[in-house]
Formats: sequence, structure tokens, C-alpha cells
Amino acid sequence: MTTISEGPDLSIHIGADDLPFVEIGGGNKLKVICVKPQEGLWIVENVFQAGFQAPIHRHTGPVYAYTTSGAWKYAEYDYVNRAGSFLYEPAGSVHTLTCLEPDTRVWFQMYGANLNLAADGTTIESVTDGPGTLRAYYALAEAQGFGRPNVLVA
Amino acid sequence: MTTISEGPDLSIHIGADDLPFVEIGGGNKLKVICVKPQEGLWIVENVFQAGFQAPIHRHTGPVYAYTTSGAWKYAEYDYVNRAGSFLYEPAGSVHTLTCLEPDTRVWFQMYGANLNLAADGTTIESVTDGPGTLRAYYALAEAQGFGRPNVLVA
Amino acid sequence: MTTISEGPDLSIHIGADDLPFVEIGGGNKLKVICVKPQEGLWIVENVFQAGFQAPIHRHTGPVYAYTTSGAWKYAEYDYVNRAGSFLYEPAGSVHTLTCLEPDTRVWFQMYGANLNLAADGTTIESVTDGPGTLRAYYALAEAQGFGRPNVLVA
Amino acid sequence: MTTISEGPDLSIHIGADDLPFVEIGGGNKLKVICVKPQEGLWIVENVFQAGFQAPIHRHTGPVYAYTTSGAWKYAEYDYVNRAGSFLYEPAGSVHTLTCLEPDTRVWFQMYGANLNLAADGTTIESVTDGPGTLRAYYALAEAQGFGRPNVLVA
Repeated sequence: MTTISEGPDLSIHIGADDLPFVEIGGGNKLKVICVKPQEGLWIVENVFQAGFQAPIHRHTGPVYAYTTSGAWKYAEYDYVNRAGSFLYEPAGSVHTLTCLEPDTRVWFQMYGANLNLAADGTTIESVTDGPGTLRAYYALAEAQGFGRPNVLVA
Repeated sequence: MTTISEGPDLSIHIGADDLPFVEIGGGNKLKVICVKPQEGLWIVENVFQAGFQAPIHRHTGPVYAYTTSGAWKYAEYDYVNRAGSFLYEPAGSVHTLTCLEPDTRVWFQMYGANLNLAADGTTIESVTDGPGTLRAYYALAEAQGFGRPNVLVA
Repeated sequence: MTTISEGPDLSIHIGADDLPFVEIGGGNKLKVICVKPQEGLWIVENVFQAGFQAPIHRHTGPVYAYTTSGAWKYAEYDYVNRAGSFLYEPAGSVHTLTCLEPDTRVWFQMYGANLNLAADGTTIESVTDGPGTLRAYYALAEAQGFGRPNVLVA
Repeated sequence: MTTISEGPDLSIHIGADDLPFVEIGGGNKLKVICVKPQEGLWIVENVFQAGFQAPIHRHTGPVYAYTTSGAWKYAEYDYVNRAGSFLYEPAGSVHTLTCLEPDTRVWFQMYGANLNLAADGTTIESVTDGPGTLRAYYALAEAQGFGRPNVLVA
């Protein structure tokens, strides 16, 4: 029981241009980079335009967001995410994403599902998760002429 | 950057009698052992009676179940969990718990939330998660004369 | 992005007799149930005899232990794990396992590696992790006539 | 058991200038953003200069790296991480970081510890983990006149 593992030596790189951004409406874009269906992990990169708003949702696992350009905020908070911002959203957090500047770019590393809520803040209208987002990404990529992207599904 | 951490030396033990089983109806019982609200982790121990059935639900994170007595199964599968069984339920799995024998005892280590589904298998009727279950456990324990249990909330 | 995932419907059951306990010396036994090499997760079940002692080690991830029979403790703590005990060991915790009663049986759900320390409590003498333990388990099982066990490698 | 959790509503934002980069030698810099000691999670941002090389190490948990400027690679692989690159390093992966261009900037979200290896690739010379790196960051920040940074320790 005290052996040393050599382990898998398989770091996987996905370069900036290895996967397409698909249009999801209004100039907003989505790239799905990595999904671990068994773990409930999904990693996406979004480009949002000013005025974009995502429905209020609650997370069932923790989320880590890395912003590289533009500006966005949660309607429920005062702070603004800009290039270089890190955001930690624990499981159970509830918020409404609003984009403030054009070409706002963010990586989201998300565990669990987004429970999208009605205006009352409690009724669940839909669920967004990794496998569903991956299916949507594949479909949009093919419809938009990118073929099937080589997402890291681990 | 090559220092060695001494680290926190704080393993926490919860003995079999340190927390009460609360009655949740029909002789079925619940003990909430550990909740990490930020991580979406919750660990419970249940005692189920024959005929108990939990609503069909989908998990948003992985679940690990350790059975120590009795017998239970998912309606969707043939295998039966008995003393010594280990069950792995990946994120996204959907099933309906049915208890087959009296005093069936199981530890569940769960990540994320249970999305309880309507009979159609897709409409979400309610959500069960760690913080909500912890509140219910506190309330039942106090109502049943156990006081407020010292659950590990980390 | 608001589709509902059907998800993988693949809960995996490992019954008490589906995998062998291999002898690791002195009547102490090991069963490796589940390894997720990419996640650093490993789940084992041990049977320890009175007097068994594991080297002092530090964990690099959290550990959750479920005891079903016998008695064991960490030399650094007063409490004793018995049937029905739950033990939480956060990342960074350091301890020396000592078995107090025969046929002590424990499930360990472990994240990361065990850094086995010299008597000085800081020098690392060896590392025990999931892939290395799995290799040892396969080798012992084959040497002891059990063939290659069907461990859940996810 | 079917209550809906309100959950903690506490997303935490760390802006680009909220925490200092400390000098770690040769113009290379470190910012420690978030440490969860119990989980073994640590999130840092580095600025590396061309020629910087980190010792060969093995990870005990998975790592996710987000590059925002410059260029770096692992000596063991051909691909180069540039602005917009995502890198996945599973638990058990072993590699030697080499920086190729000035002011290369990377966020690392790391689970578990880095086991720094001798030239033979197996002997462990030291261990780098979240709590140890946090202590080093605090000490360097104070020595370099930044005071004690308000790292997210969750």
C-alpha cells in the first residue's frame, strides 16, 4: 500500500482557437470546453454583449468565474467583474447575470446545475446543466457550420 | 513555494449515538451527519422500512451509498443493496428508491441536489438539498424532544 | 441553454461479495471498490486486526470514513471509531491509525494521496494513492487466486 | 425532505487589484486568490518571465489552468499555452513548467498537492500545497510592504 503511482500523464490542452464560439442570440456566444458528466462539472467560456441578461438561477454546486475582458455584474450585488476578476459562487447562491460592456468574456468552471427561477425567486422554470449545454453546443455548432467540436468530455 | 504544510489536524468523529435519528413518517428515520453548504455536500444516514418509496429524482452531482443492513433497490434496476453493498450514482442518474426489508440502513454521501420529478419523469416538482434537509432535521429533532443536534457543518 | 438533461442513467452496484478481500499481512485485508484516477478519488474497504498500525500520514484531500464493526482510533485523538461511526478527515490532517479490536471493518472514501511520514512527522517516506493501491490490489488478488477483480474505475 | 433551500447568497468577488502580486524571484510573481484548506483547493494567479522553470511535480488532484497572456509549456508536451488556452491536468499527471515569453499570466485552480520530484522523476523532494503557499504569500506580501492580503479562505 505504499507504492508510488506513476499516474496518467495526460494533460490536455485546448487552445483559444481549437473550439468555436457559437452564436446564442444577440451577438452573445458560447464555447463549451470541458464536461465531466459523472462529476457534474462543466467549463464554458462566454462572450456577452452589453444588455445581455441571464435568468435568475440558483447553483447546486460551487462555481468559479474568471473574467478576461468587458464588464458584468449580478443584479443582486454592487461589484463589477472586469478583466482580471475572480468570482466565487458557493453552492446555493442565487443571482441574475447582467452584462454591462460589449465583448465581455468569462470562463465559468461550474459544479452541479443551474436551477433557473421564475420572477418569484423560488419556482424552478428550467434546469441548465453540463450535458444539456453540451448537446445544445453540438447542435448550434453543426447548424452554424462548425461541425462537431472536439470538447473535452472526461 | 516548496514549504510543507503542517495543515489542520482536526479529524472530526461522530459516533453512532452522537446524533439522533428523527422519525420522518412510517417508522422511517433520518440522521443528518455532515453538510458543507458551500460545496453542495451532504451526508445522511437513513433507516427505511419495507415499502418505503422515495420520489423519482435526478442528481446534479455524484452520490456514494453504503448499506449496512436490510435491503433496498431502485425500481429502474434489478440489483438489490444489502449489508456491505456500495452504490455509485453519477451526476445525472435518475431513479426511484424502494425499500424491501425492515430496518434497512444506508449512509448516503451526496453532492449537489436531488431534483424530484413528476410521474412524467421530467417535470421538477421540488428540490431536496443539504441545507434544506438540515433545516428539516433540526426542526424534527426539536419537535421530537432531541434538542438541536450537533451536526458537522463544515 | 435551458434544456433539461436526461443524463447518464448508470448507477453501479457492487455487492458485498462482488469483490474479494485480499490479505495484506497479519490477517488484515483490503478491498478496492472504486478508483477515479483523474479525480484522485479512491474508495476502499479494510478489515483490520487488533494491533494493526498504519504509518503516520498526511492527506492531501478530504477523507470520509464509515465504520461497520470492531474498534479503531488515531493515536493522536481520544475518540474510538466503532460500528456506526462516521469520521471526517479534512485535507491536511495527520494521524496514525491503530486497530483496537479484531475484524474491524471500515469504508474509506478518500480524495488525494496519503503522504506517509517518517517518525519526525515531516519527512515523506512514501506516497499511497488510488492508482498505486489499485495496482497492488490487482497483484495481490491474482497472487491469492482471486483473478482480476472488477473494480469500478470511473 | 422536499423543502427548497434559500441557500447562502454570498458570491465573493476579488477584483484584479484587490490582491497584490508578490515577487517570488526573477520578476516572477504570485497572487493567492482562494484557499479551501479542508478541501485541498487552492487558486492562484502567476506572472512568469521567459526562462522560468518550475520543478517537475506530480499532482494528487485535478488542476485547471486558464492562460491570459504570454506563452508557456510543459517540457513533456509539444503544445504551448497562450492567451485563451485552457489546460486540464488530471490527478497523477507529471510535468515541468517552462515559461517561453515575458509576462505570461495564468490562473491555476488546483486540487490536492504538488509533489515536487527529484531529477529521477520519482523521489519526492518537497510538497507544495494550498496552506503552505498561503503562508508564503502572506510572508512575502508583508515583507514587500503590501500588508496582509485579504485572501478568500473558505
